[in-house]
Amino acid sequence: MSAVWLNGDFVDQSEARVLVADRGFTLADGIFETIKAVGSTPFWLSEHFERLKAGAVEIGLTIPFSETRISDAIDRLLAGATEDTPSAIRLTVTRGSAARGLWPKDAASQPTCVLTVAPSPATHPQDFVVCRSTRRNEHSPLSRIKSLGYGDNILARREAINRGVDDAIMLNTQRHVACATVGNVFFRIEGAWVTPPKADGILPGLARKRFIVELGAAESPLSSDMLRKSDAGFVCNSLGFSQIKSIDARDLPGDLTEIPIEAVYSP
Amino acid sequence: MSAVWLNGDFVDQSEARVLVADRGFTLADGIFETIKAVGSTPFWLSEHFERLKAGAVEIGLTIPFSETRISDAIDRLLAGATEDTPSAIRLTVTRGSAARGLWPKDAASQPTCVLTVAPSPATHPQDFVVCRSTRRNEHSPLSRIKSLGYGDNILARREAINRGVDDAIMLNTQRHVACATVGNVFFRIEGAWVTPPKADGILPGLARKRFIVELGAAESPLSSDMLRKSDAGFVCNSLGFSQIKSIDARDLPGDLTEIPIEAVYSP
Repeated sequence: MSAVWLNGDFVDQSEARVLVADRGFTLADGIFETIKAVGSTPFWLSEHFERLKAGAVEIGLTIPFSETRISDAIDRLLAGATEDTPSAIRLTVTRGSAARGLWPKDAASQPTCVLTVAPSPATHPQDFVVCRSTRRNEHSPLSRIKSLGYGDNILARREAINRGVDDAIMLNTQRHVACATVGNVFFRIEGAWVTPPKADGILPGLARKRFIVELGAAESPLSSDMLRKSDAGFVCNSLGFSQIKSIDARDLPGDLTEIPIEAVYSP
Repeated sequence: MSAVWLNGDFVDQSEARVLVADRGFTLADGIFETIKAVGSTPFWLSEHFERLKAGAVEIGLTIPFSETRISDAIDRLLAGATEDTPSAIRLTVTRGSAARGLWPKDAASQPTCVLTVAPSPATHPQDFVVCRSTRRNEHSPLSRIKSLGYGDNILARREAINRGVDDAIMLNTQRHVACATVGNVFFRIEGAWVTPPKADGILPGLARKRFIVELGAAESPLSSDMLRKSDAGFVCNSLGFSQIKSIDARDLPGDLTEIPIEAVYSP
């Protein structure tokens, strides 16, 4: 499981390197997907490719390998995996190395494409705060694609840990609820499930899409005031589901046993 | 000039690589400075260190080498430089490689520190548009430090080129003027020079600081309506100065010959 697929070659993790001139490293000029696998089976692969392609169109990036080629590489990376063991595959595509400058003439010359595999730890119920240190920028198209720029999410997570909890709920610039630092959020308010709409600056998560269908959830703007009326909530991403136990020290006691987690997380 | 200083070692540019697990590459978790040099003389080095340190405090990052050590490395990188030739030194510090996750336990283990040197082309008067595709997020502290996340600026530059001009003026989420894609902006409105305040989501540029003093410029919020009353403008960063010839096809005819460019760009 310590192999990395880098631009077509399998290399050991300790040898998998990119040039310091790679625009992924210098300018966060790239996108990625995080893909769940159990044993040797990746989940929702064609949907991850669709979302990756949509992100690539948004930033004018060429994906340098075919889906078949990337899919084959994933199969080979997972070939030795223990049955029933969950892992997280990360697929990263950057604009590759280039001369300095935001948009040099050779910017699109040779994109970089990387696949890594890591253990995916079990999720557990978590305590949250509403993030104060930064906001999600719904005015940027990057808020709706899986861009490499995770600085604000890192600030929010760090704030949460410094405030003694597990994670943070991020608000957007209008103070609408957007998401957690690595997942979409759902809240039950007066008996109905609600999740923020894409326009509020959220990544359209693949688990989110499934939970919207399973729960009949509404996609509607959620003010931070409305958040205080919720009695249950959870975070989800492609890797898993976590109950939101509390927000700003207010307990969310709602029972989540009826949520069809296993139905959602099937290959 | 093709050497790179990477974590204490001088290596050829073609061999200067970081692990794909580096958080600079995976999450844009780092900061940088761009430093002007002419011949073997770097400009404003102590101020660049001050700004780098302030950015490091903001994101909780340790700079792994002393200023003396980095300064010595810059001297060695510039040792072979031709007199009077301008170059751009980039100093990048990331949180280094780590296990996956936004804030894993080993996140701060070994930061990555890189110095590169590149030619610095002469600047020239430029045509601008006001960016429509994205906005600067003044609600994020990252808008005021030199974070690696340049995705929005890249989108803005790409939009400008697609619209047939050189660069874009970025607005913040309140539609105040913030900056150009790689520099601060100054406008002359009814005879007085104005530049956006730090609170509006701008990097506090080192050239900006000098031009504020030299021109007696006011730091005040600048709406996009006020921008239409400007008769002269320029962009500046640590590397140089560019006249703003036009914005959205409206000419800014103002004479800039009285601007003390040489006084500002002295070591």
